[in-house]
Amino acid sequence: MSQSPYEQLEQEWRRLHAFHGALALLRWDAAVMMPRGSAEIRGEQLAALETEYHALLTTPKITRLLDRAQANAQAMEDWQLANLREMRRARDHAIATPVSLISRLARATSRAEVLWAEARRQNNFELFAPCLEEVVRLVRDKAALLGQALGMPPYDALIDEFSPGVATPDIEAIFKALSRRLPGLIRETLTLQEQRPSLPITGKFSSGRQRALVVEVMRTIGFPFDRGRLDESEHPFTEGVPGDIRVTTRFDAADPFPGLLGALHETGHAMYDLGLPQRWRDQPVGRDRGMALEESQSLLLEMIIGRSRAFVQFLRPLFEKHFAVTGPEWEAENVYRRLTHVRRSLIRVDADELTYPLHVLLRFELEKRLLSGELAVRDLPAAWDAGMEQRLEVRPGGAAEGCLQDIHWALGSFGYFPSYVLGGVIAAQLWESLRGALPDLESQIGRGEFEGLFGWLRENVHGLGAKVTVKELMKKATGQPLSAAALLRYLEHKYLEQPA
Amino acid sequence: MSQSPYEQLEQEWRRLHAFHGALALLRWDAAVMMPRGSAEIRGEQLAALETEYHALLTTPKITRLLDRAQANAQAMEDWQLANLREMRRARDHAIATPVSLISRLARATSRAEVLWAEARRQNNFELFAPCLEEVVRLVRDKAALLGQALGMPPYDALIDEFSPGVATPDIEAIFKALSRRLPGLIRETLTLQEQRPSLPITGKFSSGRQRALVVEVMRTIGFPFDRGRLDESEHPFTEGVPGDIRVTTRFDAADPFPGLLGALHETGHAMYDLGLPQRWRDQPVGRDRGMALEESQSLLLEMIIGRSRAFVQFLRPLFEKHFAVTGPEWEAENVYRRLTHVRRSLIRVDADELTYPLHVLLRFELEKRLLSGELAVRDLPAAWDAGMEQRLEVRPGGAAEGCLQDIHWALGSFGYFPSYVLGGVIAAQLWESLRGALPDLESQIGRGEFEGLFGWLRENVHGLGAKVTVKELMKKATGQPLSAAALLRYLEHKYLEQPA
Repeated sequence: MSQSPYEQLEQEWRRLHAFHGALALLRWDAAVMMPRGSAEIRGEQLAALETEYHALLTTPKITRLLDRAQANAQAMEDWQLANLREMRRARDHAIATPVSLISRLARATSRAEVLWAEARRQNNFELFAPCLEEVVRLVRDKAALLGQALGMPPYDALIDEFSPGVATPDIEAIFKALSRRLPGLIRETLTLQEQRPSLPITGKFSSGRQRALVVEVMRTIGFPFDRGRLDESEHPFTEGVPGDIRVTTRFDAADPFPGLLGALHETGHAMYDLGLPQRWRDQPVGRDRGMALEESQSLLLEMIIGRSRAFVQFLRPLFEKHFAVTGPEWEAENVYRRLTHVRRSLIRVDADELTYPLHVLLRFELEKRLLSGELAVRDLPAAWDAGMEQRLEVRPGGAAEGCLQDIHWALGSFGYFPSYVLGGVIAAQLWESLRGALPDLESQIGRGEFEGLFGWLRENVHGLGAKVTVKELMKKATGQPLSAAALLRYLEHKYLEQPA
Repeated sequence: MSQSPYEQLEQEWRRLHAFHGALALLRWDAAVMMPRGSAEIRGEQLAALETEYHALLTTPKITRLLDRAQANAQAMEDWQLANLREMRRARDHAIATPVSLISRLARATSRAEVLWAEARRQNNFELFAPCLEEVVRLVRDKAALLGQALGMPPYDALIDEFSPGVATPDIEAIFKALSRRLPGLIRETLTLQEQRPSLPITGKFSSGRQRALVVEVMRTIGFPFDRGRLDESEHPFTEGVPGDIRVTTRFDAADPFPGLLGALHETGHAMYDLGLPQRWRDQPVGRDRGMALEESQSLLLEMIIGRSRAFVQFLRPLFEKHFAVTGPEWEAENVYRRLTHVRRSLIRVDADELTYPLHVLLRFELEKRLLSGELAVRDLPAAWDAGMEQRLEVRPGGAAEGCLQDIHWALGSFGYFPSYVLGGVIAAQLWESLRGALPDLESQIGRGEFEGLFGWLRENVHGLGAKVTVKELMKKATGQPLSAAALLRYLEHKYLEQPA
C-alpha cells in the first residue's frame, strides 16, 4: 500500500459518496416514481444502506487513518486540511450516537409520522402526544451525547448538524433583531397594501404548459437538463448529487405561480450543488455548507429574485408565449403586487417573506423549551396558540392548523427550523453585496441574463463547498459579520416603498 | 446473541437482499430516467454497491455461520435446507473469483462495450477483436476458477450461473434433437406459408394509445400496478424485486405488435417474480431459479400464449377499443398469421420461434470453441458466416449483421445464450402439461381469464422459488425429464397445421 493515510481516507470517502448518491436516488424514486404499495420494501433498502453507511463511517480503520493523517497535517494544503476536518466532523457526528439509539429513534419517528398524520386529520393532539413525548425523550438523549462529543451545549449540537458553526447565541441575536422590527413592519406594510389593491389572476393552466414555461425558465437560469431532471411530486424537493441533480415541483391548474416558485426554490438548491468545487465532488469538503446556506440559495432565487420587478419583466413574455394570456391582471406591476402580497397566515408554508420569520421564531422557542423540559408536550398546543396570537395576531382554530401543521418534530428534526430564517438572513446579506459588486444586476435579470449572478455566487459561495464555516464565508463574501441588518434593510426597502 | 447460526444467516441475507433491490433500482433508473450526462456517476455508485455486496457475501463470518448451520442441518426443515444450500451456492460463486479478476473483467468489458458499439457501427470486426480476445482470456480464467470451486468443467460452471443444475451434455442432447428436426420443419413451414398469404397491417399508432392497450392487457393478466410500473426504454427489460417490479417496452408508431409483445415478454418475467414464495422473498431460496426458467416464463407468455388464436381472440376487441380499427387485416385469422409469420433472418432478436433456436445453437458452439481455444477470435467472423449459411441458409453481408450483432460476448456473458433455448424448451413442456391439467385453458385465455394459467404456474413453478433444480422442477411439474420433445411437438402442431 503506497497510499498515504490521507489518500486512503479520500478513497474511503469516494465509496461513502457513492452510497450517499445511491441513497439519494432511492429517496427521489420513492417520492416521484415508486408504486404506492412498495413503500415497505423501499424502507428496508434505505435502512440497510444507511446502516452500512454508518458502519463504514465509524470503523476503527477510519479513526486510525484520521489520527495518522492528522499527525502529518503540516504537509497538507488548505483544501486537504479542511477536508480532513470535515471527515472528522462527519465521523464524530456518526460515532457520537450509538446505533441502538439511532434505530430506536428511527422506530419512534416512523410511528410518530403515522400518528402525526392521523392526529392532524382528526384535529386531535392527544392522539399524537405520547409519540411526540417519546421522540422528544430520544432526541434529548441524542443531543446530550452529541453535545458531549462535540463539546457544545445539547441544542447547539443539534443545530450543528444543519448549520455548522452557528450557535444558539448567534440565532438569538438575529431573532431578537427580527422580532423587534418585524411586527411593526408587517403592520405598516398591510396598511400600504390596502391603498394599492391588485387584480386577481385566474384561469386554467395545464401542467404541460406550466412545465414548458418552468423548463424554459430553468434552462435560462442555467439548470443543465443533461445532468438533471424536473419532475412532479407532492412537495417540491431537490435530491441527488452534482452530476445528477433532480428537482421537483407541483403544479396547481388554477394558479401558475406556486409551480414556478417551487421550481425556482429548488433550482436555487440545485445551482448551489452544481457550483460546488468539482475537484472535491466526492469528498466532504466538496459538499454544501449545511441547511442554512442551502436555504439561502433557494430563498435568494425564489423570494428575492423571483419576486422582484426585474424578474417579472423577464417572465412577462414567457407568460404570453406559454399561456397566451394578456389583460390588465398580467401587467408587470400587477403580477409583482400579487407575488409580494403579505398576509397574516396560520400556516408557515403559506407565509410570505415578511411574516415567515415569526413562524420560525415561535418554533425555535418552543423546541428549545421542549428539549430542556421547561415545556411539557401536553402543554404544547396552548403555548403554540398563545405564541401565534402574540406574534402574528392570529389564533389557530385547532391543533391541525396549530402545532400539528409541520411534520418536522414527528421526524425528530429539532434544531432544523432556525436554518429557514438563517437562510433568509444570509440570502439578503449576499444580495446586498451582489448588488454592490454588480450594479447592473437587476437589468441583467430583467433581460434573462444570469451569468453575472451565478458567476459571483460560484466565486464567493458555491465554489467554497464546506471549506469554511458559514460565519467565515459571510465575512469573506460580504465584508460583514452575519446579522439580521441586511434582511431588515431589504424588507423595509421592498415593502415600504412609496407608491409610484 | 440468542439467534441460531442459521437465523443469523437469514438476517445477513435480508441485508444482501436490500442491497440487491437497491442495485436493481439504480440500474432501472439508468435505463429509464437518468439524464444522459450522469452515466459516469451512476457507474461509480453501482461499482461501490456491487463491491460492498461482494464483500458482505464473502466475509469469513458468512463462511463460519454456513459451517455451523450445516452442522445442525438435521434439525432443519426442507425449505431451510434448500435455503442453506442456495446460500452456500451464492457464496461459492462469489468467493471463487477473486476481486482482482472481477475488476479486471469489469474494466475489460466496459472497454469492450464501447469498442463493440463502434465496430458494429463501422462494420469492422478488426476494431473489436483485441478487446474480445482480452475478455475471452479473462472469462476463461474465471471459468477455470469457478469450475475448480464447484467441481465442474469450466463451461458448465459458467452455465451454472444462469441455469443451475443443467450441464453441457443436457444442452447438447436438446440442441441435437432441435438441429435434427428444425431445418426441415422450417422448409415445410415456409412452403405452407406461401400458400396462405396474409394482409399487411399498417397505420399510425400513438404511444399513448399503445400504452393504454398494453396497460389493459397487463392488468387483465394480473400485473399489479400498485406494486409495479410500465415504462419505455431502448430495449425492453424487467428489473426490481417482487413488491416493486418494473417492466419496460418500446413502442413503434408504425406497428403496434412489437410494443405489445415486448411488454408481454416482460410481464412473463414479472409474473414469475411475483409468484415466488412470499415467505422467502428476501432469501436466496425465494429467488427465481435462474435465467432458463425466467426465459421460459417470458416466452410462454410472449410466444406460446401471445401468438395463439385464443389470445388473438382476447385482443381483437381491445384493438377496436384503443385503436378504433376494423377491416380485413384486423380479422383474427389475419392477425394470427402475422404474429406467426416465419422467415430466415440474419438477426437473432428479429427471429421467430421456429428459427430462433438455430441462432442460439450457432452461438453455443462458437462460444464453447472460443473458450476452449479451438477457435481464435480472429477466425470468428468466418466461422459465424459459415455457420449461418449452413444452419439458416442466409449469409451476413458483414460483421455488423454477423458476429457483431449481439452485445453479450463484449459484456463477458458466456454460457448465457443456451438459456434462451432452454427457456423455449421448458415453456413448451410446461404448456403441454398445462393443457393436460386445464382442458379449458385456451377458451379461458380467449375470454381474457388468466387465473387458471397462473394458478397452475404458481403451484408448479413460481411458488417453488429456488428450492429444487430446473431438472427436478420439470420432472415434478410435467412428469417428464427435460427434453426437446414437447417443443418439437408444439412447433409441428402449430406451424404444420392444415389450412382450415
